[in-house]
Amino acid sequence: MNQKRIVETTFRVRYAETDAMGVVYHAHYLVWFEVGRGDYFRAVGQDYGEWEKQGYYLPVSEAYARYHAPAQFGDLVTVLTWVEEVRSRSVTLSYEVRAAASQTRLVTGWTKHICMDREGRACRLPEEVLQIMEES
Amino acid sequence: MNQKRIVETTFRVRYAETDAMGVVYHAHYLVWFEVGRGDYFRAVGQDYGEWEKQGYYLPVSEAYARYHAPAQFGDLVTVLTWVEEVRSRSVTLSYEVRAAASQTRLVTGWTKHICMDREGRACRLPEEVLQIMEES
Amino acid sequence: MNQKRIVETTFRVRYAETDAMGVVYHAHYLVWFEVGRGDYFRAVGQDYGEWEKQGYYLPVSEAYARYHAPAQFGDLVTVLTWVEEVRSRSVTLSYEVRAAASQTRLVTGWTKHICMDREGRACRLPEEVLQIMEES
Amino acid sequence: MNQKRIVETTFRVRYAETDAMGVVYHAHYLVWFEVGRGDYFRAVGQDYGEWEKQGYYLPVSEAYARYHAPAQFGDLVTVLTWVEEVRSRSVTLSYEVRAAASQTRLVTGWTKHICMDREGRACRLPEEVLQIMEES
Repeated sequence: MNQKRIVETTFRVRYAETDAMGVVYHAHYLVWFEVGRGDYFRAVGQDYGEWEKQGYYLPVSEAYARYHAPAQFGDLVTVLTWVEEVRSRSVTLSYEVRAAASQTRLVTGWTKHICMDREGRACRLPEEVLQIMEES
Repeated sequence: MNQKRIVETTFRVRYAETDAMGVVYHAHYLVWFEVGRGDYFRAVGQDYGEWEKQGYYLPVSEAYARYHAPAQFGDLVTVLTWVEEVRSRSVTLSYEVRAAASQTRLVTGWTKHICMDREGRACRLPEEVLQIMEES
Repeated sequence: MNQKRIVETTFRVRYAETDAMGVVYHAHYLVWFEVGRGDYFRAVGQDYGEWEKQGYYLPVSEAYARYHAPAQFGDLVTVLTWVEEVRSRSVTLSYEVRAAASQTRLVTGWTKHICMDREGRACRLPEEVLQIMEES
Repeated sequence: MNQKRIVETTFRVRYAETDAMGVVYHAHYLVWFEVGRGDYFRAVGQDYGEWEKQGYYLPVSEAYARYHAPAQFGDLVTVLTWVEEVRSRSVTLSYEVRAAASQTRLVTGWTKHICMDREGRACRLPEEVLQIMEES
């Protein structure tokens, strides 16, 4: 992780994201990973929405999350996002969600993405994206 | 409401649908209205997914909900759905969510839908659908 | 609306909030209203999370939304929030969601909230809150 | 998996669960796992809601999902749920989501749960539950 580019996104926990245990429902962290991912791409000059318009999709092929401590309504949380591995047809990003105030680690995880074209066939990531990801 | 066709859908409250107040988060009832609506259409021999494939969309143009009593995790709830009003280019459906066991009224509401084509222009509902809705 | 305090919140549309029509699913706007409401309370020096710790709850008793134009993935949107009406035991807030770039009106709506205590009984809003709301 | 008890839950994909790719958004499968888990417990004579009332909680400590093929709006899907491993203070359940009609495998995954008391301390699973899980 030493030379990797890490992008941070901070936002507040929504009431909609809590559950009857009084904390954030576990599936929402995958959504937060998505928020971190979008900001990561923007930080390196890319725009996932644009990729889709050009016919490249990056659906999630695997996802993993480990829950260390719970977030609660109103908390400011920070998602740290970095590229874990890049291959010609896939990319794996890693995430760490922290409580913004205390920097306590709340959730860690990763998502693997396969590059797909409009017809749903696996394809090479756009060259520009590959290059940026490999350098990050 | 006397001669109207009312379609019932029963399902169980998911933990994901609860919030830190220990009850179902209010926005999820709009999703339950959608579930009731889909079942309503199926009950009258229609399939909303098919309409989309043929180029007809029914986006929500207005939605209203009134919350009478809360639902909790694990409860069986029933959504009653009926057609409130049909016009050539729009349809309004009404809903009542009840606790399945006690038949207590939990939430009532309605959604208005405009018929749209693939280009996002308002259009007439398919004739077959109009006829069925007007008879229901 | 002339002298009313209007609080603005801007954030980006999540992929999780879109649906198969390619735009934001209608129920998520109620969540965005909640985000605007939380920021409204913070802007007037209040914290809804604190109210709950003190035993005051503001569940939604009615909600209405009108959909003018769709938001899409990656769009920056702004929620404008203001107090529409205050009574001793209830408060109504209004919302307007705009595309941040063009200021196009996307969705308008309101939510009515009843003040409740821990036992679920209707109660007066805390005096401090009443006063602030009435002045806003 | 040979002698394991496998519990099946079948339901229909909601429009709310789709995203702009036209298929189910990946985080919702964790919710479906939760639905399968609740039905699994009911099938062996347990009720997770009751456990909470007695002071036992089973928060998710890890979750993993692998996405094989997408589900679409209106599809009937089946979640198969079984116990993968039981320890005195934790339980791991596995899931397979299938298209109900074709039995195509859509998503596989697992969730690990730690037993917690009201104060948030790890604790032994209730004896009755341990016994049932170990036998399943």
